Amino acid sequence: MSDYVKSKQAGCVGLVKTKKAVLFSESESLLLESGRSLCFVEVAYETYGKLNAERDNAVLVCHALTGDAHVAGYHHEDDRKPGWWNDIVGPGKAIDTEKYFVVCSNVLGGCKGTTGPSSVNPETGKPWGLTFPVFTIEDIVKVQKQLVEHLGVDCLLGVVGGSLGGMQVLEWAIRYPDKVKAALAIATTTRLGAQSIAFDAVGRNAILADGGFQGGEYAGGEGPQRGLAIARMIGHITYLSEESMHLKFGRSLRHADQYRYDFDSEFSVETYLDYQGQSFVDRFDANSYLYLTKAMDYYDLAARFGSLEKAFAEVQADVMVMSFSSDWLFTPRQSRDIVDAMLSQGKRVTYCEVDSPYGHDAFLLEANVVGRLIGGFLKRAAEGSVPGIEEVHQPYRQDPAVDTPWTKMRVDYDRIEELIVPGSSVLDIGSGRGELLHRLIVRRGVVGLGVEVNQDDICNSVELGIPVVDLDVETELGSFGDGSFDYVVLSHTLQTLGRVEPVIEQMLRIGKKCIISFPNFAYWRPRLQMMLGGRTPVSASLPFEWHDTPNIRFVTISDFVRFCRRQGIEILQQIPMVTRDRAAVRLWPNLRAEEVIFVVSRAGIER
Amino acid sequence: MSDYVKSKQAGCVGLVKTKKAVLFSESESLLLESGRSLCFVEVAYETYGKLNAERDNAVLVCHALTGDAHVAGYHHEDDRKPGWWNDIVGPGKAIDTEKYFVVCSNVLGGCKGTTGPSSVNPETGKPWGLTFPVFTIEDIVKVQKQLVEHLGVDCLLGVVGGSLGGMQVLEWAIRYPDKVKAALAIATTTRLGAQSIAFDAVGRNAILADGGFQGGEYAGGEGPQRGLAIARMIGHITYLSEESMHLKFGRSLRHADQYRYDFDSEFSVETYLDYQGQSFVDRFDANSYLYLTKAMDYYDLAARFGSLEKAFAEVQADVMVMSFSSDWLFTPRQSRDIVDAMLSQGKRVTYCEVDSPYGHDAFLLEANVVGRLIGGFLKRAAEGSVPGIEEVHQPYRQDPAVDTPWTKMRVDYDRIEELIVPGSSVLDIGSGRGELLHRLIVRRGVVGLGVEVNQDDICNSVELGIPVVDLDVETELGSFGDGSFDYVVLSHTLQTLGRVEPVIEQMLRIGKKCIISFPNFAYWRPRLQMMLGGRTPVSASLPFEWHDTPNIRFVTISDFVRFCRRQGIEILQQIPMVTRDRAAVRLWPNLRAEEVIFVVSRAGIER
Repeated sequence: MSDYVKSKQAGCVGLVKTKKAVLFSESESLLLESGRSLCFVEVAYETYGKLNAERDNAVLVCHALTGDAHVAGYHHEDDRKPGWWNDIVGPGKAIDTEKYFVVCSNVLGGCKGTTGPSSVNPETGKPWGLTFPVFTIEDIVKVQKQLVEHLGVDCLLGVVGGSLGGMQVLEWAIRYPDKVKAALAIATTTRLGAQSIAFDAVGRNAILADGGFQGGEYAGGEGPQRGLAIARMIGHITYLSEESMHLKFGRSLRHADQYRYDFDSEFSVETYLDYQGQSFVDRFDANSYLYLTKAMDYYDLAARFGSLEKAFAEVQADVMVMSFSSDWLFTPRQSRDIVDAMLSQGKRVTYCEVDSPYGHDAFLLEANVVGRLIGGFLKRAAEGSVPGIEEVHQPYRQDPAVDTPWTKMRVDYDRIEELIVPGSSVLDIGSGRGELLHRLIVRRGVVGLGVEVNQDDICNSVELGIPVVDLDVETELGSFGDGSFDYVVLSHTLQTLGRVEPVIEQMLRIGKKCIISFPNFAYWRPRLQMMLGGRTPVSASLPFEWHDTPNIRFVTISDFVRFCRRQGIEILQQIPMVTRDRAAVRLWPNLRAEEVIFVVSRAGIER
Repeated sequence: MSDYVKSKQAGCVGLVKTKKAVLFSESESLLLESGRSLCFVEVAYETYGKLNAERDNAVLVCHALTGDAHVAGYHHEDDRKPGWWNDIVGPGKAIDTEKYFVVCSNVLGGCKGTTGPSSVNPETGKPWGLTFPVFTIEDIVKVQKQLVEHLGVDCLLGVVGGSLGGMQVLEWAIRYPDKVKAALAIATTTRLGAQSIAFDAVGRNAILADGGFQGGEYAGGEGPQRGLAIARMIGHITYLSEESMHLKFGRSLRHADQYRYDFDSEFSVETYLDYQGQSFVDRFDANSYLYLTKAMDYYDLAARFGSLEKAFAEVQADVMVMSFSSDWLFTPRQSRDIVDAMLSQGKRVTYCEVDSPYGHDAFLLEANVVGRLIGGFLKRAAEGSVPGIEEVHQPYRQDPAVDTPWTKMRVDYDRIEELIVPGSSVLDIGSGRGELLHRLIVRRGVVGLGVEVNQDDICNSVELGIPVVDLDVETELGSFGDGSFDYVVLSHTLQTLGRVEPVIEQMLRIGKKCIISFPNFAYWRPRLQMMLGGRTPVSASLPFEWHDTPNIRFVTISDFVRFCRRQGIEILQQIPMVTRDRAAVRLWPNLRAEEVIFVVSRAGIER
């Protein structure tokens, strides 16, 4: 049974063809960012699924440096490999070809059917080579826009891409703000750092230094095979992580268990790179490699617009940013810069740093998590609303591994819901699976955003349609703008914080009002337990032993009131409660309340 | 004023000369690990300082891949640059040429005076080129041993080196265990990982693919200039960190503030690499580059001996291992592997991961910390004892920034000192500046080792002659062998631990007895404060507010006793104390004791 036949059973788009369209010609040429223009641009592309009657289900996939239009399915029945993102694109998959009309085109300057330096210059009748004009990511996207219009699509449901593809996604969201509902920028950056430029430069150097390069006019000849292979090897190292290379190859030797004491390739990783380099030479054009890496090096949104904030000022799309923990080419930090700038502009952005050992290539390999995030995000963009509470199977955490009597009794959620003015904006610090925000969005019509680090919780929130950003509560709240939310909520998290003051300081800066709930350590039961038993208290609201509790701050109502007074924090409301009674406590709250909700704000702030 | 003249005022060795010695000849040839032999080896070397009458003050410095024998001083009065480690080696410096006789030689196979592939093969009268035998780190060290003997030195006080030099240090300690007192292996590894081999392989590929290489017989011709430059560029990227490249270059352009839209080098980082590549071609031989990188790739102590533990089994030297936080070529993890294997063999090892943004090159750039660690370590090796307590200026922490009433009243130290049997071995978890271990070493004659993460504290311990390893207390105690210490001490640290159980579990595994001291949270003062005031207690022994205390575990004597019972931990001794009285408390200890010392062990263990 061929792979193609097997694939038909597993939700594959099946046999597909690459199509071509001439999008720019002498009558309407493409003006490039460099000032030069191209009077003939043909584009190779593939489509899967059907454009619906409303023409609002189109998803554009943007490929990376060495990818092409062939995203999914097979070109021939005996093809050994499907398209490059077959795990993600297909019927029933994350980018579901039964729901969406999926489009992918080979980029401008590529060598897989779209006009590039290996194409013939109509004016000379010879291949362009280095006379092809240098182009940018903006130019690539302008050509895609023309293709999308050509296919009858005015507004895209989604634009999705990783690496160089992610740059195109950002460019779409910036350049055509009203033409993109959901923008998913994966493992990408708004500008390469010095190290990435350095790797690109060395690769280009290797091509240019190869005697076979002939100033780029190698068509018909051998071409700069060794130089291109070396460039590919360098690139390939940067796509993998140290860990994944170690797991894949370690120090194993290819053909022997003893050293050869010569200069042939003998470590497995050497022969692997030889193979990668050689097979790349067979499928890729050296000039295209020069042009495309240069386009990546040139991309710099902050320089172009004055700042990243200004670059994103007009974005209207819902944005998802995804990075990978071991990606050292386009690092999580670089994705965070995108997220920070979006947040500062009040944009709807969701961010997840996916935990993966696979380095930059993880966006191609971590199909499960990547698919879950893309699928959930596109589904919510298509449906345009969050599901009702009754539709959600498990609104509360039911995982027996982490379940405690306490997490089942979140009476503070009801109270917090009552405290929040309908239609306001809410930032939930430590938002978990999104239960509280889901309630607030459905019942109080708030604009909500969660902060969470647990990957599964983030996926769950995305599937509920709740925006969430993967930030460290204790160190990364600086990402949010001053007074950017009506409410900032910290529910039953205060007592677990390593750094209390900085977190509360940030909350007061970000929120017009802050809602903070925590178990009261001065409740009479733990007090008596301590006084008479001489042991650190264990109770329903403090259900852990001293040595394994996540609660590392023992704070009482009195402590918190005193803290607020000292820090100049205004207490707007104070709701001491007994958990089981779900009742507020009026008399002697510090003694009689099991838990408490404070509404506070920076004294003197305008609300 | 020339740099040379200026340098004379700043503790420089001044004008120096590279000397030469023929160490192997036809009568006594060098047998290589590959099985081949060399019947003529000449070595280029420099020496500074004087060998003393006892001939026990010689320090061998081993250079890295592209270094040479010229470590310090100037060759000519108008030299623009001094030797490559002039910051570390010189009169009054870390490797003090007024005290030590310092030797450094160009490695076998190098191109700076020692016999290598660019030397003339006496049999053919032509340069060796690729007919030079492939050699290994072992071979390099065999030649150094011959040189050291030639200079009249039987036993080295120290062997010091970074990167490839560090491999030589390890090799010295293994191969000549009774000839090295102190071995300092810096920014090195016992074997390259797949990623490092990959970078080396691509560099070699670039050289071999260059038309100018001519099978290695390029003497007289141009040679593989472009290939060697590319290899150097790749290497150079791996020596810097992403952060240091970013700080140094960012995305700045060399000659313009606008893109050129062509393929000339225009980013500063590109022109810098061009320069690095070009200047390297002028000073280094391509064949040497092939041979030396191959020697590094081949180095693999675990494979050679069966395991790292076996490799280090015979080591007698005091070992210092140093790594740098941002070094991604030879990572801190790789240094940790050395340390772990040494510890498991009961070797005397000190380890510091120096915090630095400079990547692998940090061993050349972080002269302050590196110098402090090398200087302190060599000084103690030369003196052979720790200083007396009265000699030490500040035996107790006197830093006002961290000083608290509590740290001034460490009465538990006196008690712990009494508990420890003279001459036993002690592991101090969280050893700080080494005060307790210093007391125990001087007064009780123990063999001590500290675990600490604070860099300044580690430097202080090294200067006191106290071995210390830079490990995370909560996650990295697995490095120590079962029952490898008579005592494991955790003094006033329990209450700050995020993970209590795993740490105590490890302590019980490592130590025959464990000594654990902590403030008793059930002491009557905090109890009353809590009972009556309803606030989390603040007292002399618990001097912090709830929100900024490092004490995140509130543990009482009763809690700890109960914990021990549940975990099957045997309590051998229990010393409740009142801090000011320095007296043991007999009656109602959980109520009346301010702090407590427990001596515990795993029940049933043989002591």
